[in-house]
Amino acid sequence: MRDTSVTTSTVTTGPIEGSSKRYLDVDGMRVPVRRVQLSNGEHLDLYDTSGPYTDADAHIDLEAGLPKTRDGWTKPPAADGISTQLAWARAGIVTPEMRYCAAREGVSPEVVREEVAAGRAVIPANHKHPESEPMIIGKRFLVKINANIGNSAVTSSIAEEVEKMVWATRWGADNIMDLSTGKDIHQTREWILRNSPVPVGTVPIYQALEKVGGDPTALTWEIYRDTVIEQCEQGVDYMTVHAGVLLRYVPLTARRVTGIVSRGGSIMAAWCLAHHRESFLYTHFEELCEILARYDVTFSLGDGLRPGSIADANDEAQFAELRTLGELTRVAKSHGVQVMIEGPGHVPMHKIVENVRLEEELCEEAPFYTLGPLATDIAPAYDHITSAIGASIIAQAGTAMLCYVTPKEHLGLPNRDDVKVGVITYKIAAHSADLAKQHPRAQERDDALSKARFEFRWRDQFALSLDPDTAREYHDETMPAEPAKTAHFCSMCGPKFCSMRISADVREYAERNGLTDAAAIEAGMAEKSAEFAGAGGQVYLPVVSTS
Amino acid sequence: MRDTSVTTSTVTTGPIEGSSKRYLDVDGMRVPVRRVQLSNGEHLDLYDTSGPYTDADAHIDLEAGLPKTRDGWTKPPAADGISTQLAWARAGIVTPEMRYCAAREGVSPEVVREEVAAGRAVIPANHKHPESEPMIIGKRFLVKINANIGNSAVTSSIAEEVEKMVWATRWGADNIMDLSTGKDIHQTREWILRNSPVPVGTVPIYQALEKVGGDPTALTWEIYRDTVIEQCEQGVDYMTVHAGVLLRYVPLTARRVTGIVSRGGSIMAAWCLAHHRESFLYTHFEELCEILARYDVTFSLGDGLRPGSIADANDEAQFAELRTLGELTRVAKSHGVQVMIEGPGHVPMHKIVENVRLEEELCEEAPFYTLGPLATDIAPAYDHITSAIGASIIAQAGTAMLCYVTPKEHLGLPNRDDVKVGVITYKIAAHSADLAKQHPRAQERDDALSKARFEFRWRDQFALSLDPDTAREYHDETMPAEPAKTAHFCSMCGPKFCSMRISADVREYAERNGLTDAAAIEAGMAEKSAEFAGAGGQVYLPVVSTS
Repeated sequence: MRDTSVTTSTVTTGPIEGSSKRYLDVDGMRVPVRRVQLSNGEHLDLYDTSGPYTDADAHIDLEAGLPKTRDGWTKPPAADGISTQLAWARAGIVTPEMRYCAAREGVSPEVVREEVAAGRAVIPANHKHPESEPMIIGKRFLVKINANIGNSAVTSSIAEEVEKMVWATRWGADNIMDLSTGKDIHQTREWILRNSPVPVGTVPIYQALEKVGGDPTALTWEIYRDTVIEQCEQGVDYMTVHAGVLLRYVPLTARRVTGIVSRGGSIMAAWCLAHHRESFLYTHFEELCEILARYDVTFSLGDGLRPGSIADANDEAQFAELRTLGELTRVAKSHGVQVMIEGPGHVPMHKIVENVRLEEELCEEAPFYTLGPLATDIAPAYDHITSAIGASIIAQAGTAMLCYVTPKEHLGLPNRDDVKVGVITYKIAAHSADLAKQHPRAQERDDALSKARFEFRWRDQFALSLDPDTAREYHDETMPAEPAKTAHFCSMCGPKFCSMRISADVREYAERNGLTDAAAIEAGMAEKSAEFAGAGGQVYLPVVSTS
Repeated sequence: MRDTSVTTSTVTTGPIEGSSKRYLDVDGMRVPVRRVQLSNGEHLDLYDTSGPYTDADAHIDLEAGLPKTRDGWTKPPAADGISTQLAWARAGIVTPEMRYCAAREGVSPEVVREEVAAGRAVIPANHKHPESEPMIIGKRFLVKINANIGNSAVTSSIAEEVEKMVWATRWGADNIMDLSTGKDIHQTREWILRNSPVPVGTVPIYQALEKVGGDPTALTWEIYRDTVIEQCEQGVDYMTVHAGVLLRYVPLTARRVTGIVSRGGSIMAAWCLAHHRESFLYTHFEELCEILARYDVTFSLGDGLRPGSIADANDEAQFAELRTLGELTRVAKSHGVQVMIEGPGHVPMHKIVENVRLEEELCEEAPFYTLGPLATDIAPAYDHITSAIGASIIAQAGTAMLCYVTPKEHLGLPNRDDVKVGVITYKIAAHSADLAKQHPRAQERDDALSKARFEFRWRDQFALSLDPDTAREYHDETMPAEPAKTAHFCSMCGPKFCSMRISADVREYAERNGLTDAAAIEAGMAEKSAEFAGAGGQVYLPVVSTS
């Protein structure tokens, strides 16, 4: 892993503003949380994806990699000869990984085991990636997000990609996918894996294609298989496999507005047409299952025929492939391999929910993992937003993980700033869905932040927000002075008049007079009003303090 | 209107990149469109909100104001003594404004008249604002967006606010609201009105409050009434009136997490409690109707008790006020005054649709005009996004106009960049809803853009996008060279491999061989494959040109 271009100074470390790292002790495992300490003495512990990088006490050494924590955990004996979370769950065994996930989610380990056993949830955790902190993907749990990183033929260095991984997890990415297609694919992935606190996914066909000089027709099952084994050995936790792109589906895309937009899908389509043979990913799928089972690598069955435009949404090609993914799901699970299903793409709002219902029906409720979908095509440079609209809706309907989209989608490769905007935008989509699904603990954070806002605790409001740095920066733009951070007014209205302050006064008045429900109001208003008027109507006199 | 700080050089003029102004002749009226000329000889005409500022041939003189176009149109005689679009529509009269709106929407004038007559749509068009280009707000039409501008006690100048108005309409704002609260309120509004090509809304209570030195208890009906008349005379097209904040509702907010967050709502709550009297907006509502009817100013009945946090969504206070707004809707309509209803605020996704259903039921389907709603509280600095999620969903359910939210919401006053981001984000929300509602012409633009994308017509893709400048800028970042704008590959994958190119080749292959539906595929694949293989499998050979 020697590469002088990657040093510890290239990654971002230290706690997020207003937070500090804490660890819960769970059966001897240290489960991280991000503790937000509030100025009123309370605190809120948040789900933490950022690994040791945000621990003020951690020593980060990229060359050495993160500690191989999971190697110290007791691995259960194989279940029917298979050592995967799925096999163990089916055998009734609760693994350390399941207990770890349960603690993060605030549910019982048995709920985790049940969902994994049913195939409704996956814990992507390659035995060879002991540095990762286990997490669970399934509709009964918090909605997760994935950030794509990776270099291309055009741009980027290994150091940049490692920093993008650290940076993405800092802001809340639950997974990252390394989609490198340029040079040094193996080396880039090695640096990322050894230093990643989250599961890492790949699309092995990209590296296989590099090995044959970029010519899809030159691909063979053997080259692909060896690439998959190479990546399994390195510790990749899940792999996108476009095994549902069958020969007979390819011409179904011919009359589309945007044909095949998935890279993996188009590679396989080109191969199938060229050889007039069925995809080797499909014909060798059972062999692939045997390989993935050995490492407990999770399938992410790719949607190679996903729609790339509003016009192509929910068409014959897309749903034909989904049916095949359902068939492959059953094959994979029969080999004890965990499976999730990838979804679109570009879909108008009124066609989104059908995608989830059909996926659940055809794929036995395997976790759905979607890219957006973008709710319109007309906003390049804002596709993080067009897709967050679709992502929120599809997550509310039951999608378990969302693949982020950055502002550079369709236009260029994301830089570090784009990665952050993409991650924050997708945290918004995921959290909005958690609220809509009434996840038991989701609203805690909204309530804490809104309470801080109402009480003019500006610093607490920043600390509780998804991006404290930008929130503070925007506040500084209008109200730069430090006393403004404790001022009892906000920048929208200025010091003379503030609706938040007035309504705080209303509350005080109502509570003082027992006017806290409709009946009391009817009864008490007349009586209390004279008293109140006598007191000089102080409800609305300014009580502003700027210091 | 003399003010040396405001000169023509302070506003942005000239066409949007890739577009030019055209006018449709509609019964002698000139209805503007933005024509996007494509490199393949086709063109697409888009709805255009930007007024003469984007007309390369227009002479802009801010001191003189825009031409008073509507003064030249024939005004129908009063219907039952009332000269409002509502009264005329009910009397079966199709006004020039209705014909103008019909042309913009691509529907028949009779549809416009029917919707206005039923109170399901409004055309905010004060007789004293002849500079405005009429537009219609109603659920059967394109979803509209409003941009708030206005100075405050803390910041901003008249010149900045005029430019914000021009800038907001350039990017697609259908309306603007001047929410100024600082000094020079009258003067600021005068500059905006005389130069605004779109309807202008206000919240008169803000100016009334300035007149009494900022003390809500000192407000009187007379001061308020005179302020309303002053604004009607100036040409304000619609006014937010928080007449539904009744005395008995105020204590219902006492136990909320965030109390009353509407400025107008909290002003009236403070007044009601102080005097222990019913709101003068409510008790004098019929007088208010008589004033507004004279000018054809539209009511925007304000939601003074809207929820300011997820915790407070859809609560008793909010819906109690909505019931009163329904009652006031009927009163206003009986006076021939057009009405729309304002809505929240902060609402989790699963509680959004109920707001629309209840509004339609209680307010006779008067156009609903909502602020977002924000689908979560935890992302200050990204509330354009949290609210675009809610806005898309509420618009899909039937909301007619969306009030934008900028990234500075809750933190500070928006600058010019924030205004643009807010407008573009809300165009995304509105357009996504138009697609979901299957508005007949909505998908044209998506299809044209996606087709351009698929055919590597980069410049056409930029020109068709909501923000051509930023799309081009992002493309330049990764692929700065001018030849890249005609390159047959995109920056994501580089020149060696591109899924879009491969799938274009697949299409060509399928069409050449007649493999364009499932039956043909079954029949034809075997026969054609040999021929294809014989041709060297050129489907996937690079045909890249960088020049």
